[in-house]
Amino acid sequence: MKTLEKITPLEEDFAKWYTDVVKQGNLVGYGPTKGTLVFKPNSFGIWEMIQKNMNEIFRSKGIQNVYLPLLIPESLFEIERDHVEGFNPELATVTHVGDKKLSERYFIRPTSEVLFADVFKKEIESYKDLPIIYNQWANVVRWEKTTNPFLRSREFLWQEGHTAHADPFEARKLTKDMIRLYAKFAKNYLAIPVVVGKKTPYEKFAGACSTYTIEAMMKDGRALQAGTSHYLAQNFSKAYDIEFKDPNNEYVYVYQTSWGVSTRLLGAIIMTHGDNRGVIIPPRVAPYQIDLIELFAEKNPKVKKVSQFLNTVLSRKWRVRIDATDKAPGYKAANSEIQGVPLRIEIGPRDLENDNVTIVRRDTLEKITVNYKEVKNHIKNILEHIHNNLYDSALARLEQNTVWAYDYDEFKKLVSQNKFVIIPFCCLDEAEMQIKAETGATARCIPKKLKKPKKSVKCIMPQCYRKTNRYVLFAKAY
Amino acid sequence: MKTLEKITPLEEDFAKWYTDVVKQGNLVGYGPTKGTLVFKPNSFGIWEMIQKNMNEIFRSKGIQNVYLPLLIPESLFEIERDHVEGFNPELATVTHVGDKKLSERYFIRPTSEVLFADVFKKEIESYKDLPIIYNQWANVVRWEKTTNPFLRSREFLWQEGHTAHADPFEARKLTKDMIRLYAKFAKNYLAIPVVVGKKTPYEKFAGACSTYTIEAMMKDGRALQAGTSHYLAQNFSKAYDIEFKDPNNEYVYVYQTSWGVSTRLLGAIIMTHGDNRGVIIPPRVAPYQIDLIELFAEKNPKVKKVSQFLNTVLSRKWRVRIDATDKAPGYKAANSEIQGVPLRIEIGPRDLENDNVTIVRRDTLEKITVNYKEVKNHIKNILEHIHNNLYDSALARLEQNTVWAYDYDEFKKLVSQNKFVIIPFCCLDEAEMQIKAETGATARCIPKKLKKPKKSVKCIMPQCYRKTNRYVLFAKAY
Repeated sequence: MKTLEKITPLEEDFAKWYTDVVKQGNLVGYGPTKGTLVFKPNSFGIWEMIQKNMNEIFRSKGIQNVYLPLLIPESLFEIERDHVEGFNPELATVTHVGDKKLSERYFIRPTSEVLFADVFKKEIESYKDLPIIYNQWANVVRWEKTTNPFLRSREFLWQEGHTAHADPFEARKLTKDMIRLYAKFAKNYLAIPVVVGKKTPYEKFAGACSTYTIEAMMKDGRALQAGTSHYLAQNFSKAYDIEFKDPNNEYVYVYQTSWGVSTRLLGAIIMTHGDNRGVIIPPRVAPYQIDLIELFAEKNPKVKKVSQFLNTVLSRKWRVRIDATDKAPGYKAANSEIQGVPLRIEIGPRDLENDNVTIVRRDTLEKITVNYKEVKNHIKNILEHIHNNLYDSALARLEQNTVWAYDYDEFKKLVSQNKFVIIPFCCLDEAEMQIKAETGATARCIPKKLKKPKKSVKCIMPQCYRKTNRYVLFAKAY
Repeated sequence: MKTLEKITPLEEDFAKWYTDVVKQGNLVGYGPTKGTLVFKPNSFGIWEMIQKNMNEIFRSKGIQNVYLPLLIPESLFEIERDHVEGFNPELATVTHVGDKKLSERYFIRPTSEVLFADVFKKEIESYKDLPIIYNQWANVVRWEKTTNPFLRSREFLWQEGHTAHADPFEARKLTKDMIRLYAKFAKNYLAIPVVVGKKTPYEKFAGACSTYTIEAMMKDGRALQAGTSHYLAQNFSKAYDIEFKDPNNEYVYVYQTSWGVSTRLLGAIIMTHGDNRGVIIPPRVAPYQIDLIELFAEKNPKVKKVSQFLNTVLSRKWRVRIDATDKAPGYKAANSEIQGVPLRIEIGPRDLENDNVTIVRRDTLEKITVNYKEVKNHIKNILEHIHNNLYDSALARLEQNTVWAYDYDEFKKLVSQNKFVIIPFCCLDEAEMQIKAETGATARCIPKKLKKPKKSVKCIMPQCYRKTNRYVLFAKAY
């Protein structure tokens, strides 16, 4: 039986805190292949809740789930040049079956634009077949050099949407609709506020015309890209020859989009809401929303009775777990806290003398003692308060730590303090490379909603004398 | 726009009928890698319903979902010899990342016993950690030589359960509980009757001590293995050194089981229930249970009104789809039938003169004309009748085509007629190989529930003079 170990305080060493929390919360194990993860029930359960809720939203929008193959023949992959260049160094390559060499090499999908291109080519004949709006939940492999649980691993899970349209405006609109959908999802389900924006040309997806992103701020001030949506225009349809007959019987290349969120979101949840007692799972995606903690059940039979009663009543609406082990009360509380269960209800003989139990919030650690028959009337409200409190705290932090700079030295200072820094910037690749080399920060996005100064000002780069009214958000990122 | 083509009658050419139905029902496409599939919305939707329902059952039994990595390092795979021998010829092998050769080769999982062994070794310390009952939904790759949609493809989807126990009796019991759970699932959700039994030593899983199976009979009389459950005993725990401390502080190797069902079930559904109009999806796993077919909506605005009304009312309880296209009524009906939607409701101006609509059952093609406001009172009953009718028909076919033989020539004749043939049999590997070579049939299982003759009789093999009371089911199989 594993025992609970100390968690390094997050103020002391954030990276160490993160790995401690991930381990102590029993969220992951390490796979036998370096850089791969085992998603244990505590983390996979969150992913399942994300899938469930996102699938419901997708279904209401007419998005259809499909499943495409894992392997991409080399000859098929090689066609769209930008895409190839972007992904080639990370491609796990199948060359043999057992000891037999295959006549062609196959790549394990790092993303599935190429596979969907093949499907679209086969499925699309006329404008009447369009739009096609597909999504798949899948595993992908990218052979990363440095890895970090959830944030960067050689295999991860995600959903990837792929669409084909007759109308470029419709495709562009969908690209933006999806990034807004992700931003809303992050707010409403994960209690994570995000900055919505467009990637700079240097940072956009390999093969896209434009990329939109949602960027979240972790507790250490660093950015985490939490979802992206790409307008692919006709880049893939021209490369893969995906045409449709328009109403005038002319052949036209389809317009495409793709968009996705991944198990990185689990990392985002931990680093947005976690504290020195462990993770805090936002109630709407928590695999268990309530822990029923039986205390000294062997001393008083009423403990088990009330715990059963509460389980029956609460399970109708919420996801409930019972801790009926004979471990010490302190251990049980710490175990529930470390796993981030939003609420725990302690059921012990002393409280029960007055028919009471104690409800403990994971986020504020606030305790409320209530009659056990009244518990069910409190849960909905408390869970909503927890969600809102998590969101509000994260939003306050994001707002406090987002600053503007117009001078390059000032910018460097602020970025080194792990701020989100918004600067007037011309978006030249060379300037982005310079900033990255000098500060470690990258262009996160050109934020959508900004109260910008009315007049154009000089680009922040000392060597650039152009005026611009484009403002770009820079930060160190995961 | 694809048009509907003719389906080869199943009496004429069953194999051709199957591929026609799979294609016309818009169930699959072919992937760019030979032998791989694209699961389109119509088939992936069934798999999602299977997942949803099975997950609910699993959850009620305390089975926890996890996700383990795709890749298995060669050195880890090589440890359990039987397992290696069974799977080696089919292993897709990653040797490179891009153009760089890796220092170790990795196999894409063909099944995950080895990966779960690695997890169990890391997680288990004491008997208090046991049992562990994990399940994962995953893709696996086996490089098969001949492939067939859903039935045998180089990549397929499945759930695989893996458990570790301190007590061998508990593990054996769970192995059997799971095969019974699968049999019940096949009956209650897929309307497929199955024969439950144990595999012969020759047919058992590579690495298992014993394998249980559910075998279904397809419309052509051939068998399809629809789910298996393996008692692994200590085979893997000894090979992978998975020990726990028992209450006396002694180290003991854990006892293990594994069990799974796959997207083969989609093939089983099609070949159990399909007819010459296409597939028939059992109502409880149908992605859409009801098609609302608008007829001549442009001639009478009431058509759309009633269709909207029915959609609102019926969607509360059932999965409903609307066909509001301007295609011909005959095409719409045929399209609904070919996709196997259990019920369609035709909403046309003529019926509406008397406020009626027509409900058509997919299985019997029976039509009922009812007042549109009464529709909702009929659905539950009709869907139940469809499920029961599908199951009863399949059961009658299974019973009619299951026969006994005591003479080898008689056996050969019956097997050549695609019957399930039960014979007294000694279970020698050589005899099974002989039967396979001479008839194409394989030992499907030693059925559990059999009214056996009380006395032992001679083994059916001419060269064997031993008496036996072991009866084995043989059939040609997919």
